[in-house]
Amino acid sequence: MTSNHRILLKSRPVGAPTAENFDHDEVPISSPQDGEVLLRTLYLSLDPYMRGRMSDAKSYAAPVEIGQVMVGATVSEVIDSKSPDFKQGDTVLGYGGWQEYSVEKAAHLRRVDPDIAPVSTALGVLGMPGFTAYAGLLEIGQPEPGETVAVAAATGPVGSAVGQIAKIKGARTVGIAGGEKKVAHLKELGFDVALDHRSGNLKEELAEATPDGIDVYFENVGGDVFKAVLPRLNTFARVPVCGLVATYNQTELPAGPDRSGQLMGAILAKSLTVRGFIQTEFVGRLYESFLSDMSEWIRDGRIQYREDIRPGLERAPVYFNDLLTGGNFGKMVVAVGADS
Amino acid sequence: MTSNHRILLKSRPVGAPTAENFDHDEVPISSPQDGEVLLRTLYLSLDPYMRGRMSDAKSYAAPVEIGQVMVGATVSEVIDSKSPDFKQGDTVLGYGGWQEYSVEKAAHLRRVDPDIAPVSTALGVLGMPGFTAYAGLLEIGQPEPGETVAVAAATGPVGSAVGQIAKIKGARTVGIAGGEKKVAHLKELGFDVALDHRSGNLKEELAEATPDGIDVYFENVGGDVFKAVLPRLNTFARVPVCGLVATYNQTELPAGPDRSGQLMGAILAKSLTVRGFIQTEFVGRLYESFLSDMSEWIRDGRIQYREDIRPGLERAPVYFNDLLTGGNFGKMVVAVGADS
Repeated sequence: MTSNHRILLKSRPVGAPTAENFDHDEVPISSPQDGEVLLRTLYLSLDPYMRGRMSDAKSYAAPVEIGQVMVGATVSEVIDSKSPDFKQGDTVLGYGGWQEYSVEKAAHLRRVDPDIAPVSTALGVLGMPGFTAYAGLLEIGQPEPGETVAVAAATGPVGSAVGQIAKIKGARTVGIAGGEKKVAHLKELGFDVALDHRSGNLKEELAEATPDGIDVYFENVGGDVFKAVLPRLNTFARVPVCGLVATYNQTELPAGPDRSGQLMGAILAKSLTVRGFIQTEFVGRLYESFLSDMSEWIRDGRIQYREDIRPGLERAPVYFNDLLTGGNFGKMVVAVGADS
Repeated sequence: MTSNHRILLKSRPVGAPTAENFDHDEVPISSPQDGEVLLRTLYLSLDPYMRGRMSDAKSYAAPVEIGQVMVGATVSEVIDSKSPDFKQGDTVLGYGGWQEYSVEKAAHLRRVDPDIAPVSTALGVLGMPGFTAYAGLLEIGQPEPGETVAVAAATGPVGSAVGQIAKIKGARTVGIAGGEKKVAHLKELGFDVALDHRSGNLKEELAEATPDGIDVYFENVGGDVFKAVLPRLNTFARVPVCGLVATYNQTELPAGPDRSGQLMGAILAKSLTVRGFIQTEFVGRLYESFLSDMSEWIRDGRIQYREDIRPGLERAPVYFNDLLTGGNFGKMVVAVGADS
C-alpha cells in the first residue's frame, strides 16, 4: 500500500496564508480500530471558515494546532471498515482533512447517495454550504413572498443557494458578485438583479436596483458590500451573518472614523435583527428536511449549482488563497483521489 | 380662563440642545371638537428619544417641525370633554407635548388608575419606559433562570425595570450606573452586581463581576459601556437595542480605527442576536399583560421605581439636557399643573 500525503499547519498566517505556513509529509497509512473506518479521500472541501482555524484568535471552534493536519470536510471511499455500518467501496461524507487517507469513527460519517447528484456535491449544495444557506435564510432571514433578499459572493455555494431558495420562496433576489463572468452567471441562476461589486459604483447601483429596499441581507462577505447594503435595509430587515470573508486576512483594524456606533444606530433606527450563526446550531432540527428539500429542488432543476474542482492535494494552500480573494467560480473542491 | 404656555422647537440642535433651540409662547386655550377632550397637563415626561425628534436625520418617527410644540407623553386632567368616554376630572395618559393645555382625540387617550400607584408613574414604570423594558427583555432578551442579564442607565426607568423583571425571571443581574449614589441605589433595587461606569475601570470590573459571561445585554446607552460589555457576551447572547443615549448629542463620528467590522465579527463568532426595537411594535400583543403583570409586581413590592419630578414647564429644556448627561436620578418628569 502507498503512504499518506498530508498537509500540516506549520505556523499561523499573518494576513494571507503563504506556502511557508504549511508543511507536507508522507506517513504510513493507519489502520482502523473497532468502530472505525479507513478512508481514501476523493474530494476535499475548501471553505472560508478554515482561515479562522489557522488562527488562534478566540472563535466558536478550537484552532488547528501547529503540526497537525489541516481540518476539512471530505468525500471519501471506504477502504477498510471495522464497523458494521460501512463496507469497502461505500462513499461517505466525513471530516478527513487535508490528506489522502484518514481513519474516522463510523459514527461521524454519513453515507453519500450518488444517485441524487455527483458525490462532490455533498461538500457543496447538498452539504454544509447548502445547509448554511437553507438554515440561515429560512430560520433567521424568513423571507416573505414579495420581499427583497440580497446576498453577496452570490456565485459561491452559499450565496447561490441563498438566492435560489429565496426565489423558490417568492422573494425578489439581488445577487452581488465580482467580475463580468460571475455577474452573467447570476442571471443564469435566476437572480432578479445581478450587480458587480468591482464596478466602483456598487452603492448607487444597489440603491437603483432596490427601490423597495432590502428585507433580508444574507451576510457572508462583510466589508464594503455591507457598507453599501446598510443604507438600503428596511425597517424590520433581517441580517443572518454566517461569514465575513472580506475581513479574514485583515491584520489590523481599518482606518477610522469608528463606525460601530453608527451601525448600532442603524440597528436601532430600523429595528434590524442582526444574527450571527454557525450552521451546526440547526443540524439536529433541520438537516433531514434540508436534504429532502434540496434533493427535490435539484432533481426538479429549481436549484442549480456550480463547482470549481481543482486537481492535486499539494496545491490546496494555493487554491485556498484563491477562495479568500474570490478567485474561485463555484464551490471550491480539491480532487484528491478522484478525477478533477 | 388662563392662556396656554407652550415650548416650541425653534431650531434643530447641533450637539447638546441649548436655550436658543426653543421658543416659549402664550396662546389662547383651544376648544375641543366632537370626539375630542381638553386637557390640563399635570405631568410631562422627558425621555431620551426626544433628542431624535429634534433632529431631521432619518429615523423611525417624523421629526418635530420647526415652530411646532415639542412632543411628549403627558398625564393630564380632563377639563372639558366632547367624548362620551371621558368626563371632567378624569386623569388620562396622552401625548400633549411641552405645554400646559392640549386638545386631544379621545381615542388616543388611556385612563390612568390612581389606586395602583401615583398617576405620574403612567409616564414611567407603568408607561412607555416600563413597557420598553418588559417587551424588550422578555421578547428579545428572553432570559432563562440562572443566566446573567446586564443593563446600563440602570437607575433610569427602563434600566431599573429591566433589572428587576430579570430578577423576577430568575436571572443574575448586573446594573451599571454613573456615580456613587446611583450605584448604591442599584443594591436597593436588588441588582446582584452594581458597577460604576465612571470608575475608569469598567472593563476590568465587569470581567470580574461576570465570571460566567453575559447572556442578555439590554442596550439603552451605547458608547463605552457597550465596548466593555462586548467581550463578555456569551455564545448565543441576546442584545435588545432600545436606545443609544450616549451618542445622541454626537456631531461627528468618533475617531478610528473603524470597529464596525470587529463588531460584526463578534456577532458572527458568538452567534449573537442584536435586535433594535421600538416598544410600539409590541403594544398590540403585550400591553395589557404588561399592565397586569407590572401592577401586580408593584403592589407586591417586587418592582420598585424612582421618579425625579421637577417643577416648572419653562425649565423643561434644562431638565432635558440633564437627562441626556445622566443628571437625573430616576424617571425624569416635569410637574406642570401638579405639585412636584
